[in-house]
Amino acid sequence: MRAVVFQGKEQVAVGEVPPPSIQHPLDALVRVHLAGICGSDLHLYHGKIPLPPGSVLGHEFVGQVEAVGEGLVDLKPSDWVVGPFHVACGTCRYCRRGQFNLCERGGVYGYGPMFGNLQGAQAELLRVPFAQVNLRKLPPGLAPERALFAGDILSTAYGGLLNGRFQPGDRVAVIGAGPVGLMAVEAALALGASKVMVIDKVEERLRRAEALGAIPIHAERENPVRRARAETEDEGPDLVLEAVGGPATLALALEMVRPGGRVSAVGVDNAPTFPFPLASALVKDISFHIGLANVHRHIDSVLNLLASGKLQPERIVSHRLPLEEAPQGYALFDRKEALKVLLEVRR
Amino acid sequence: MRAVVFQGKEQVAVGEVPPPSIQHPLDALVRVHLAGICGSDLHLYHGKIPLPPGSVLGHEFVGQVEAVGEGLVDLKPSDWVVGPFHVACGTCRYCRRGQFNLCERGGVYGYGPMFGNLQGAQAELLRVPFAQVNLRKLPPGLAPERALFAGDILSTAYGGLLNGRFQPGDRVAVIGAGPVGLMAVEAALALGASKVMVIDKVEERLRRAEALGAIPIHAERENPVRRARAETEDEGPDLVLEAVGGPATLALALEMVRPGGRVSAVGVDNAPTFPFPLASALVKDISFHIGLANVHRHIDSVLNLLASGKLQPERIVSHRLPLEEAPQGYALFDRKEALKVLLEVRR
Amino acid sequence: MRAVVFQGKEQVAVGEVPPPSIQHPLDALVRVHLAGICGSDLHLYHGKIPLPPGSVLGHEFVGQVEAVGEGLVDLKPSDWVVGPFHVACGTCRYCRRGQFNLCERGGVYGYGPMFGNLQGAQAELLRVPFAQVNLRKLPPGLAPERALFAGDILSTAYGGLLNGRFQPGDRVAVIGAGPVGLMAVEAALALGASKVMVIDKVEERLRRAEALGAIPIHAERENPVRRARAETEDEGPDLVLEAVGGPATLALALEMVRPGGRVSAVGVDNAPTFPFPLASALVKDISFHIGLANVHRHIDSVLNLLASGKLQPERIVSHRLPLEEAPQGYALFDRKEALKVLLEVRR
Amino acid sequence: MRAVVFQGKEQVAVGEVPPPSIQHPLDALVRVHLAGICGSDLHLYHGKIPLPPGSVLGHEFVGQVEAVGEGLVDLKPSDWVVGPFHVACGTCRYCRRGQFNLCERGGVYGYGPMFGNLQGAQAELLRVPFAQVNLRKLPPGLAPERALFAGDILSTAYGGLLNGRFQPGDRVAVIGAGPVGLMAVEAALALGASKVMVIDKVEERLRRAEALGAIPIHAERENPVRRARAETEDEGPDLVLEAVGGPATLALALEMVRPGGRVSAVGVDNAPTFPFPLASALVKDISFHIGLANVHRHIDSVLNLLASGKLQPERIVSHRLPLEEAPQGYALFDRKEALKVLLEVRR
Repeated sequence: MRAVVFQGKEQVAVGEVPPPSIQHPLDALVRVHLAGICGSDLHLYHGKIPLPPGSVLGHEFVGQVEAVGEGLVDLKPSDWVVGPFHVACGTCRYCRRGQFNLCERGGVYGYGPMFGNLQGAQAELLRVPFAQVNLRKLPPGLAPERALFAGDILSTAYGGLLNGRFQPGDRVAVIGAGPVGLMAVEAALALGASKVMVIDKVEERLRRAEALGAIPIHAERENPVRRARAETEDEGPDLVLEAVGGPATLALALEMVRPGGRVSAVGVDNAPTFPFPLASALVKDISFHIGLANVHRHIDSVLNLLASGKLQPERIVSHRLPLEEAPQGYALFDRKEALKVLLEVRR
Repeated sequence: MRAVVFQGKEQVAVGEVPPPSIQHPLDALVRVHLAGICGSDLHLYHGKIPLPPGSVLGHEFVGQVEAVGEGLVDLKPSDWVVGPFHVACGTCRYCRRGQFNLCERGGVYGYGPMFGNLQGAQAELLRVPFAQVNLRKLPPGLAPERALFAGDILSTAYGGLLNGRFQPGDRVAVIGAGPVGLMAVEAALALGASKVMVIDKVEERLRRAEALGAIPIHAERENPVRRARAETEDEGPDLVLEAVGGPATLALALEMVRPGGRVSAVGVDNAPTFPFPLASALVKDISFHIGLANVHRHIDSVLNLLASGKLQPERIVSHRLPLEEAPQGYALFDRKEALKVLLEVRR
Repeated sequence: MRAVVFQGKEQVAVGEVPPPSIQHPLDALVRVHLAGICGSDLHLYHGKIPLPPGSVLGHEFVGQVEAVGEGLVDLKPSDWVVGPFHVACGTCRYCRRGQFNLCERGGVYGYGPMFGNLQGAQAELLRVPFAQVNLRKLPPGLAPERALFAGDILSTAYGGLLNGRFQPGDRVAVIGAGPVGLMAVEAALALGASKVMVIDKVEERLRRAEALGAIPIHAERENPVRRARAETEDEGPDLVLEAVGGPATLALALEMVRPGGRVSAVGVDNAPTFPFPLASALVKDISFHIGLANVHRHIDSVLNLLASGKLQPERIVSHRLPLEEAPQGYALFDRKEALKVLLEVRR
Repeated sequence: MRAVVFQGKEQVAVGEVPPPSIQHPLDALVRVHLAGICGSDLHLYHGKIPLPPGSVLGHEFVGQVEAVGEGLVDLKPSDWVVGPFHVACGTCRYCRRGQFNLCERGGVYGYGPMFGNLQGAQAELLRVPFAQVNLRKLPPGLAPERALFAGDILSTAYGGLLNGRFQPGDRVAVIGAGPVGLMAVEAALALGASKVMVIDKVEERLRRAEALGAIPIHAERENPVRRARAETEDEGPDLVLEAVGGPATLALALEMVRPGGRVSAVGVDNAPTFPFPLASALVKDISFHIGLANVHRHIDSVLNLLASGKLQPERIVSHRLPLEEAPQGYALFDRKEALKVLLEVRR
């Protein structure tokens, strides 16, 4: 089958690879229609995460069931499906607690040997283990292009808000107007935020956030802490979603949030530590959550909101390319000339 | 001062009454600008709740502080304020639990001797007891006409949804498209309902609900249970808000809700009992909440959402009349020729 | 294999039946060591629920895995296991919401064709479908006799308290001091109830509840509503758990609970309706939950509390009988001469 | 009146000071019967927090109302009362959210000009502002010695657990077996922890924790992380309560907690920052709360549990001294020769 193959640092190609097959009674094969290129694919692209050459990339997908193992009772061939980018078994002690992102048998598609050694989704066929847990049928009427977002960045943002114990009426600040940050803007407004501010340094991203309904704050042209306070009757946001990653933006989030407020960090960074403001946080009273996405927990609600049009994440798609042009897609996205690239695997 | 005075069954007049004064260190006097006529005022109007002739009516208001008792630290003359229709002391065991609607020293403005014997709000001046608890300053930029709704019907609907443990993504059915029902439509959509259905028998009300974003279901032209199931992949709504009151609509709510769903009843009725479907509810697994509004609990979030324009309840105002025309306002509203009447007390 | 077989109304026998086998990749076979006789088995015993003669009875069990289907990854032969009395698939829309008691593929062991047509657990071998969802390994050191209670009546009581949104410090009333009621007493005290009252009419049951730490209230010798108020500073309990079933005790629960309180009904009854006190509940503000047990949701916490000895439900066991004496066990239990009967299937 | 007076670093005396008076309609005067010496009093004792010589110390008290301002409706002379160590107005935006510890008009008794400039409680009379918010009547039958703990260290520990979203069945680790840590042990067990571990370096404190039901872990004689994992089926605690303060124990807490677990920090320290383990926490998924006690939020539940004997914090009292011996009490406590000192102000 055709697939996007990692060849080495900053080198991807579209080539022929052996197709996957059912290996376990709970496996399903999915015929991928659309696959996304995600910001986290760039970590692999840049060689920051070890990946053997020849590996298939990608973890965002939507498609149709091609074949099912004999243990599956919910799925049948031709069903339209989407799935979380991370895999969970559904039955280990973490899954039973609803913490699917910590599954003892988990992994990420196309993320190499450190993440479960699963083939990637930028391919004609994808093997999905524990498919009763890791696939969802599309609600009636939901367009595949929109549904794709439920499997990763939209659910990441949505879950980040809920990990920050979002409440209707909250005044929310989102740090970073990249794809995840824009998803957070859309989700916060859909869930009843009274105000959403977005902090970034790139004018164009801020304009996009503004178009979605956020108040743009340019972090270099004004003091974002002071501005956020001015927007909140001199308090600071109730909830800050950190969607960049790294010590500087975490420090900004903890400084910006109001006393008694909440900070939820979903931005990825590999700095071993950051200086948490101990004495001031003690007085200020802070709830802080940090962790990777737990997509399974939120995907059903997100799909409902997508089906009804309350969330329209496909508005950020800047490019739809045929699978064969995946190398160009990676290059465009890496140069930040594309906001969101979808690959048309089956046309 | 001028005030709307109850004279007897279906007789109201605008007349001169003695103005209130500060009686306790926590009292405030409010100069009323706008007062609403509420559906529950009609119970008094029709003589269903005992009220001595000469009593001042009304419990929806927005205005400015005129004078404050010496125990108050937050309020000062000329502050724009709105307050819940029911009064709470803030410190009894119920208030400490956040159950302000059950306050041991509570009452309702203009609702007579059974409800705390408080003067009504359709008057030039209103005495507000425990004013530190029972008044809120308007957020900057919030129009008085919009703010008024936070004190009663909007917060009633909002609280009804939360008592039904509303979750983002919920498919909500609202029974009754009167003023409270319309508020519930608006609130549910603002908080991230994926779908809102409204059941009523009056075509015009259904059209208004539809204009707010709801799916209208005419209870006499189609089977509302069947239709609601059809709209929810054959399940039934996750949450049903009953905003009419009485055995028939409660039975409908409990029949309509999906297994494992929630019913929240805010409609007022004085039937002593209704037949709760015991055996079927046991199998179905139902959460049921019934109670009057707890406005204090929700008013701050509601004011935030009003200030940011996420809620625009003033869209249902059909009539703004000078105080002197209150008798006509009552008559119009009673004949259902008005959807919402506001009285301009100070012009 | 040997099993307890229903022969007709009030007739059970121990006889030879064909052993079950693995029919699906997610099936497991369990070699039962102990099986309980449950109050709900008496409905079948009395012929109130249709059950074909020759059916194997029972749904409370603890034992060891005998064999596993090829789709199972967590379980292996000889593992000690316990499971909920009701079966869930783990992946339908209800299971995904955590509402396992409403599973679209659910059933109850030994409860006949209306409940999934599953063989009963009072047998040497039990087939468990979707075993990754419907079995739990025993924590280290947990005695089988204690663990058995996690699968039914203890988790029923525990879940009933949580459905009534139990809070630490709550003053709880339990209506009915049968096995489920006694479990509720133990669970409420373990979770930090400040006071637990138990209402019953049988002196001996009240003595047992008292021995567990409850305040006994004899419903015929004193007015239980008045007494409950006297025990709660003239308020009424914060939470009432109804563990009898039927209109009379539900009415008592709703009358007894304090304003703003919560009633959770787990008692089973087949009355089609009961008169819910509409007008008084509106003023009182009531949260009411009614439904059958959702054991899967609570079983892991319950097993932790059992393993640490914080819960010791085996204290209510009055009889341990060899499997062959099951007929005597049923008769004793039916005559209320036994509080809890365990059958020793494997000795 | 007689009072404990700060005279300078490590110098306290009992002397005569002017008695307080009612200054505002919401003030009450309390005749103190018992006052506690708290660990946080030692910060003042050692001169780490600026306090003018001549100031009255202390913030733990129980006593009887002596006089009330005219705005108070709940309290009357001779009522037995206890109150939080920190004062709140009850009506600012933080108090309305239930975040009384962040009150815009707040302060701490006897903590000097940086904390509201309120006189201390180790005195015959104490002025309590906003007394309707800052005093609670003792439930019937509750001994003053036990009630005193509700106002500070017990509610601090209890609230710390709830800030760590304590769930029944949790396996809890408490870092530090000082007075707050011991309170946390008692509270966690009362609320249904399945296991409580305590980490300290002082053998005697560990013995006390063990006597309360905890598993003692000596941080210098074994590896506490490894031991905690061994006690939790190789996971780590679900919830870690940090009750020491400072970078080392916070690092230990974050390392020890299981993936997906929660850390709640109540220990006080003035280090400006500590190194938060960013990369590992991202993978591990951590909820972290840090803040000072919010006593008002929990005191009613705590008083219920004290009145019923479910909590018996007075077991840690090592010394009851007459007021005149306060200087010895401070010295004993400072040398860690006393675990908890109560001063008998009125005998």
